[in-house]
Amino acid sequence: MKLEFNPKAEFDMIAIGRACIDLNAVEYNRPMEETMTFKKYVGGSPANIAIGASKLGLKTGFIGKLADDQHGRFIKNYMAEVGVDTSQMPIDNDGHKTGLAFTEIKSPEECSILMYRDEVADLYLNPSEVSEEYIRKAKVLLVSGTALAKSPSREAVLKAVHLAKKNDVQVFFELDYRGYTWESQLETSIYYTLVAQQSDVVIGTRDEFDVLENRENGSNEATIHELFKHSPKLIVIKHGVEGSYAYAKTGEIFKGKAYLTKVLKTFGAGDSYASAFLYALINGMDIDTALKYGSASAAIVVSKHSSSEAMPTVKEIEQLIAEREAVYQNK
Amino acid sequence: MKLEFNPKAEFDMIAIGRACIDLNAVEYNRPMEETMTFKKYVGGSPANIAIGASKLGLKTGFIGKLADDQHGRFIKNYMAEVGVDTSQMPIDNDGHKTGLAFTEIKSPEECSILMYRDEVADLYLNPSEVSEEYIRKAKVLLVSGTALAKSPSREAVLKAVHLAKKNDVQVFFELDYRGYTWESQLETSIYYTLVAQQSDVVIGTRDEFDVLENRENGSNEATIHELFKHSPKLIVIKHGVEGSYAYAKTGEIFKGKAYLTKVLKTFGAGDSYASAFLYALINGMDIDTALKYGSASAAIVVSKHSSSEAMPTVKEIEQLIAEREAVYQNK
Amino acid sequence: MKLEFNPKAEFDMIAIGRACIDLNAVEYNRPMEETMTFKKYVGGSPANIAIGASKLGLKTGFIGKLADDQHGRFIKNYMAEVGVDTSQMPIDNDGHKTGLAFTEIKSPEECSILMYRDEVADLYLNPSEVSEEYIRKAKVLLVSGTALAKSPSREAVLKAVHLAKKNDVQVFFELDYRGYTWESQLETSIYYTLVAQQSDVVIGTRDEFDVLENRENGSNEATIHELFKHSPKLIVIKHGVEGSYAYAKTGEIFKGKAYLTKVLKTFGAGDSYASAFLYALINGMDIDTALKYGSASAAIVVSKHSSSEAMPTVKEIEQLIAEREAVYQNK
Amino acid sequence: MKLEFNPKAEFDMIAIGRACIDLNAVEYNRPMEETMTFKKYVGGSPANIAIGASKLGLKTGFIGKLADDQHGRFIKNYMAEVGVDTSQMPIDNDGHKTGLAFTEIKSPEECSILMYRDEVADLYLNPSEVSEEYIRKAKVLLVSGTALAKSPSREAVLKAVHLAKKNDVQVFFELDYRGYTWESQLETSIYYTLVAQQSDVVIGTRDEFDVLENRENGSNEATIHELFKHSPKLIVIKHGVEGSYAYAKTGEIFKGKAYLTKVLKTFGAGDSYASAFLYALINGMDIDTALKYGSASAAIVVSKHSSSEAMPTVKEIEQLIAEREAVYQNK
Repeated sequence: MKLEFNPKAEFDMIAIGRACIDLNAVEYNRPMEETMTFKKYVGGSPANIAIGASKLGLKTGFIGKLADDQHGRFIKNYMAEVGVDTSQMPIDNDGHKTGLAFTEIKSPEECSILMYRDEVADLYLNPSEVSEEYIRKAKVLLVSGTALAKSPSREAVLKAVHLAKKNDVQVFFELDYRGYTWESQLETSIYYTLVAQQSDVVIGTRDEFDVLENRENGSNEATIHELFKHSPKLIVIKHGVEGSYAYAKTGEIFKGKAYLTKVLKTFGAGDSYASAFLYALINGMDIDTALKYGSASAAIVVSKHSSSEAMPTVKEIEQLIAEREAVYQNK
Repeated sequence: MKLEFNPKAEFDMIAIGRACIDLNAVEYNRPMEETMTFKKYVGGSPANIAIGASKLGLKTGFIGKLADDQHGRFIKNYMAEVGVDTSQMPIDNDGHKTGLAFTEIKSPEECSILMYRDEVADLYLNPSEVSEEYIRKAKVLLVSGTALAKSPSREAVLKAVHLAKKNDVQVFFELDYRGYTWESQLETSIYYTLVAQQSDVVIGTRDEFDVLENRENGSNEATIHELFKHSPKLIVIKHGVEGSYAYAKTGEIFKGKAYLTKVLKTFGAGDSYASAFLYALINGMDIDTALKYGSASAAIVVSKHSSSEAMPTVKEIEQLIAEREAVYQNK
Repeated sequence: MKLEFNPKAEFDMIAIGRACIDLNAVEYNRPMEETMTFKKYVGGSPANIAIGASKLGLKTGFIGKLADDQHGRFIKNYMAEVGVDTSQMPIDNDGHKTGLAFTEIKSPEECSILMYRDEVADLYLNPSEVSEEYIRKAKVLLVSGTALAKSPSREAVLKAVHLAKKNDVQVFFELDYRGYTWESQLETSIYYTLVAQQSDVVIGTRDEFDVLENRENGSNEATIHELFKHSPKLIVIKHGVEGSYAYAKTGEIFKGKAYLTKVLKTFGAGDSYASAFLYALINGMDIDTALKYGSASAAIVVSKHSSSEAMPTVKEIEQLIAEREAVYQNK
Repeated sequence: MKLEFNPKAEFDMIAIGRACIDLNAVEYNRPMEETMTFKKYVGGSPANIAIGASKLGLKTGFIGKLADDQHGRFIKNYMAEVGVDTSQMPIDNDGHKTGLAFTEIKSPEECSILMYRDEVADLYLNPSEVSEEYIRKAKVLLVSGTALAKSPSREAVLKAVHLAKKNDVQVFFELDYRGYTWESQLETSIYYTLVAQQSDVVIGTRDEFDVLENRENGSNEATIHELFKHSPKLIVIKHGVEGSYAYAKTGEIFKGKAYLTKVLKTFGAGDSYASAFLYALINGMDIDTALKYGSASAAIVVSKHSSSEAMPTVKEIEQLIAEREAVYQNK
C-alpha cells in the first residue's frame, strides 16, 4: 500500500500551527525549582516536524502566526536557516506573545512542561491568512491538533483542510493533544473527529485516539472501523515503548518497533517520529520502512537536549536502523 | 425524486438552536422610536419552524437552552402547549438571558429588527446536552445556521449533525444567516460549508448561499455543482418574490412561485416556508407540491402580526393553494 | 444646617450614569409569564432623577452613553423634551445595546425586575467623555452607584467626582445598589467607600449602606461616625415605610415620615424621592421640608405605572404634603 | 522633617503587588534574538523592594498571589530564605501563570524587557485575601502602581490602602508605571491620583508623575502643589542621572545626587533605591541621608546582573557612600 503524492507539487510538505519557544533546563535531573538556567530552542509540534523534515531534505513550508518581538524574530530566523519557507508566517499586530514551554526533566521517566499558552500569537492565525495558492503547491498538508483548540486558529485550520482536499493535497493529521488549551475533552473530540474524517493519514498515540473518541481504553479495531468509513487511508497508532501500528484502509496492518536508546527526556519523540515517517512515505518507501524511520528518528531525539535542534539527518537515521536491525537479526 | 425517512422514527422532526422572544410593535407603520407598546411572542427561526411544524401535525421536538427567568418559562410553556416536545430544553444556570428581537415595521417593505443577542442562553447550549438517544428518534434533524455562530452552541450543533448522520437521520440545514452574531463572513462560510457538506437538504436565500460561499453574486449552478460533490440530495434556493428553486442531486430542477398577498411585515416568511415544505416532504408529497406548501405558508404568515402564533394549519395552506392555483389556471 | 451651592452655576444638577428603557407590564397583578404586552418608558435611576428634577423646574444635564439604535434615540429625544440637556450623551460606536428592565408586578408588594445589563452602552461611558468644562458648570453632580459597577464607566465616574471636588461642585451620591452588575459585594463596598468618602451628600436605604460597609444589620450611628471623618456633610438613610433619617455633620438629626398611598408598584420610589429632595435643598428649603418633598414625590410615583413619566410637578408635591400634614395635625 | 512610624509595629514594611520571574540574558551586549541562555531570578518591583529591604535588615512581609507551579514555588522559597514573611502569599487555583520578564541588554544604555503579563497570577490577588489583621502590624504599607492595573488586584490594593489609613500605617506609593498593563494613560492617571491622594509618601520618576497627571512635561512645583492638598507628607521625584528631589509638606526641599558607577544594565535601579531609602527613613535617618542610601543602593544594583539577588547590604551601601562623599569633599 502506497500513498499517491502530486509529483509536480513545489513543496513536499506544508505544516500549519504553532511555532514557539522551548526553554529547556540546563541543569536537569532535578525539579525545575532548582534549575537556574534555561536554554532557548524553537519548539511546538508542527514547527519541530517542519524543521525535522527540512533537515531530512524535504522542501517544507510553514503557515503560522508569530509575535512581533524578539522571540518571534528568533523563530523565523531559525526556521529560515534550516530551510523552511517562512513566507506564510505573518506577524501579529495585537500584542500577542510567543508561546513558551519550560521543560522540567526530573529524570528520563519524569518529564513535565510548564506552558505559557494564554493569548499566544499562534492561536491568532486568521483564516484570511491561509492562502489557497500556497496550499495547492504542497504534496502534504500537515495539521497539528493543538491548532484547533481556539478561534481563530481553529477556523484557519478548518479552512486549510478544506482547501487541501479541494486541491488534492494529502492531509496528514498529527493529533498532538495538549489538554490545557481546550475547554473540555468533548470539545476536542468534536473537532478532532471533524478533521480526522477529512484526513488521508491520522497519526497519534493510543491515548490521543481515545481523546478523539471521547472515551477511555478504546481499541485500535474500533478506531479504524469508524475512521475508515471516511477519508483516511492510513492510520498510525503509537503505543510507546511497545511500538506502533499502521493500519491501511486496504486491510494491511504494519507493526513498527521502538528502538531502545539512552533517554535524556521524552519531549520531541512524536515530532521526530512524524517528520521521518513522512520523509520516508514521500520518498516512496514502503510503510514498514517508514515505521523504522520514525522510530529511529525518535530514538535519536530523546537522547538529546532539544526537540528541534536535535532533529537527525537521513544518514544518522539510516545508521541507527542498520545497527539495530543487525542486532535483531543476530539474535 | 423523493427523500427517504425512517418510518419507525418517533419524531418527524427535531430542531436544534434558539428559542427566543419577539417583541413586536403594537403601533406599526412608523419608526420604532414612536412605538410605545410591544407584544410578546415566541421567536427565533428554529423555534418558529418547530411551532409551525407542530401546528401542521408533525410530531416535533426541540433541543435548545433556556434562560432561568420569566421569558424562558414562557417559551417552554408556549412550545409545550402547541405540542412540541420540550424534554431537551435545559435551563441555563449561569445567568444568561433570553434573546430578544424588537421588530420595527416602518412599512411592509421596510422592516428591521433590533436584536439582543449578547450572552444569550441559547448560545450556551453545551454539546454534553445533545443526546444521541434523542436524535436517533427523529426522521429529520433541522439545523439553524445561527446556532453555529458561537461556542459552545456551535459544538453542540456539530455534535448533533455527527450523531444524525451516524444514525441515518436526515439533516435539513436552514442557513438562517444573521450577520451580527458572527465574527466575520469568512468564519460563517467555514462553518456553513462544513455543515452543508454533511447535510441532506440545504435551504436558504440566494444571499445566504453567497455567504456560505464567501462571495457576491454567486450562481445557483455553481452552488449546486459544488455541494452535490458531498452529502446534499436536495438544495432549495429562494429568490424572494421571484419564487424559489429546488435542485435535486438526480438532476431535476423544480420551480416554486411566490403567492402574492397583503404583506404586513416580512418577518417569519422563511420559517413558515421551511415548516410547511418539511411537512409536505415528510408526508410523502412530491417536491412541486412541497414548494407550494412552503409558499402558501409564507404568504399567510407575512400577512399577520407574529411569526410563531401566525403559523397556519394544513387546511389554511391547502385553501390558499387551491384559490391561487384556480386563479392561475383561469388566466 | 444648609448646603451651599454655587449661585452662578449654569446647571442646578448634572447626573452621571445610565439612561435605559423600562418595559412595564401592561397586564399586571400576575406573573410576567402571563403578561403579553409591555409599555416602553425611559428608565435607569440617574435618568429618572434627572427627568424628575427637570420636571420640577431644575436646570438639569446628563452625562451618559447611548446605544446607536432606536432605543438610544428614543431616550435622547424624551430627555431633551422634558428639558434635560443631552449635549453630553455620546453615542456608542461599538454595537453595545440599551439596558432594559422588564418589570413584573405580581402585587404591590411583589415586584421584580428582569434586567438586560450585559454589555450595555451606559457602562461603556469612557472617562475621556467626561468634561471638566461641563462639570464645573453645575451646583450638584449626582452620582449613581450602579455606574461604578464596571469599567470604563467606573473610571468615568471616578474622574467626574475628582473634577467636581476640584471645582467645588457638590457631590450627591445615590447608592442605587443593583447586585447583578457587580462581581461581589466586597468589590461594591470598596468603590462605594471610595466615592462616599469624597461626597458631600450620601443617600441610600439602610440595606444599601450595609452594602457600602460590607456587613449585615449595620447601625446608622456607626455609618455616620465613619463617614463624617471624611467629606460628607449630610447623610440620608431610608428605612422604607418607617420613614427616613437625615444626619448632618453638625450633629443635627432629621426624621422624615413616609406618606402612605395606594401603591401600584414599588419601582421609582427612590428616584422620585432623590429628585424632590434635591429640588428642595437647591431651592434653599430646610432639611425637614426637603424630606417631606422626597416622601411626597415617592408617594405619587409608586401609585402610577411608570418611574419617569410619572414624575410629579412641584404643585402636585405641595398639594400632597398639604393634604397629609393637615390630616396629621387634625389627629 | 521626619516621618513618624508606629514603634510597636511587628513589621517594618509590608509590600503588596507582584512577585514574578526575571529571565536575564546570560550572553548580553547583543539583541535578545542572539541570546541563547537565560538565568532565572525573582523579580517584580515590590518583590525586589521587599527582598532588598529584608537584606538590609528590615522585618518585611509581602501580600501577593502566586501561581501554582514551579515558578510560584521558587519565588516563595527564595523570598522566605532572604527573610520575607510569605504567610500572605496565597496560591492561585485557576491556572494563572507567573509573570515573566525576559531582559535584553544590548548595551548599558539600551535595555529592554519582553514581558509576559497576560492573565498572570499576581493580578488575581483578591481583596478578600487582604487581611486587616496583617496590615495593621506594619509601620509602612508599600504599594506598587502596577498592582492597580487590573481587577481584582486593583481592588485588593484599594482595600489595603483603606485599611492602612484606618490603622495609621504609613502608605508609601511607588508609582512603578508599566504602560503595557493599562487600558490607557487616562485610566492610569485616575487610579494613581486616587492612591497618591491617600498616601503619605509618593516616589516616582518625573515621567511617572507626568503619567499620574495625564500630561507631558509637568513641573515638580505643580505636582507638589496639587498633591500636598491631600495626604502626602513627602514626595520624591527622580530625574535619572541628574539626581532626585524630596519635597516635604513642611516646605523643605532635599536634593539627592546620583552616584555614577559602571552600569551593566538599568533594571532594578528604582527598586533598590526605594528599599534603601525606606530603610533609612524607618531607622530614623534624616532625608538627606535617606537620599544617599537610595542612590548608593541603585548604583550597586545597576552594576550587577540581577535586580533581586544583587540587592546590597547596609555595609556595602555605607562603604559606597563613604567612598563617594570622600571624593566629593576632596574636590
